[in-house]
Amino acid sequence: MAENLTQLTPTQQMFRDAMANLSAGVNIVTTDGLGGLAGITVSAVCSVTDTPPTMLVCINRASRSHDIFRDNERVCINVLGPGHEEVAMAFAGRVPAEERFTATESVWDQSYGAPVLRGSAASVLGRIAGTAERGSHTVMFVEADQVIVGEDCDGGLVYFRRRFHPVPASLTA
Amino acid sequence: MAENLTQLTPTQQMFRDAMANLSAGVNIVTTDGLGGLAGITVSAVCSVTDTPPTMLVCINRASRSHDIFRDNERVCINVLGPGHEEVAMAFAGRVPAEERFTATESVWDQSYGAPVLRGSAASVLGRIAGTAERGSHTVMFVEADQVIVGEDCDGGLVYFRRRFHPVPASLTA
Repeated sequence: MAENLTQLTPTQQMFRDAMANLSAGVNIVTTDGLGGLAGITVSAVCSVTDTPPTMLVCINRASRSHDIFRDNERVCINVLGPGHEEVAMAFAGRVPAEERFTATESVWDQSYGAPVLRGSAASVLGRIAGTAERGSHTVMFVEADQVIVGEDCDGGLVYFRRRFHPVPASLTA
Repeated sequence: MAENLTQLTPTQQMFRDAMANLSAGVNIVTTDGLGGLAGITVSAVCSVTDTPPTMLVCINRASRSHDIFRDNERVCINVLGPGHEEVAMAFAGRVPAEERFTATESVWDQSYGAPVLRGSAASVLGRIAGTAERGSHTVMFVEADQVIVGEDCDGGLVYFRRRFHPVPASLTA
């Protein structure tokens, strides 16, 4: 979601505009361990397979968090819901890395090895079981060993056309 | 989105429930060529990097479309918007593979090498520049060479809690 000030080719600029039209769920991916504590807002996350339960996360290699995730190997993917706009902005860069976990009213549970956001739509804990390098980004494959489903989460949160949008839990279409 | 009748472990079942809480944009990925014509609805799609412009698509290796995508190498990722629920269901398996492109009122443009859905929120054409195998699925990395941004698309379409939800183009939060 951060601005990139380098010159873009026409195809790159059109690609960004097209990707703005692809709705994506919003997540805060966290880690803690010998490599340090880190958390970052990521919309390039998806479910890969349930055999074994695997998600993927795309992270810019230039980001400070990238190497901390790689070194710790254990991560938590916290799937956000409505009302998480402020914490999503904090972890997207509005708040310095060292203050993110305390800068908002969000409550983080530190008892799982990687910070779990209370009230998330889902939190998936696991280890980085493989990676793929594509251009500026690393795709991290996370094999889940603990899954928390947000029972009282009242919807989802998507990023579309460079803004957050809540998704109601009930059927609207 | 299809049902899997094999026995699931508790972690697999919880993982599926957690993934139902992760909002995902809905896409129809298409291909045409010597390997045949194919199209399939996929929500496990994301933007990876714009250097070079790259998306990824996760496809079950057991699906008929998988080998056709692999053989043709050229694909189009059509990002859906509101009003595309019917064509999304058709390509998710409600309609047999050979009838999908004609079973709904959707208009497909065949002049790009892979079918482009008229009125999509965005259509990204490119070649499969690499793959990664994870469990039951192949992750296909698609490097874009042609990008069509849907100018008059009036929103997005997400899959959340096993249902479609429109995302309005205007700010709602």
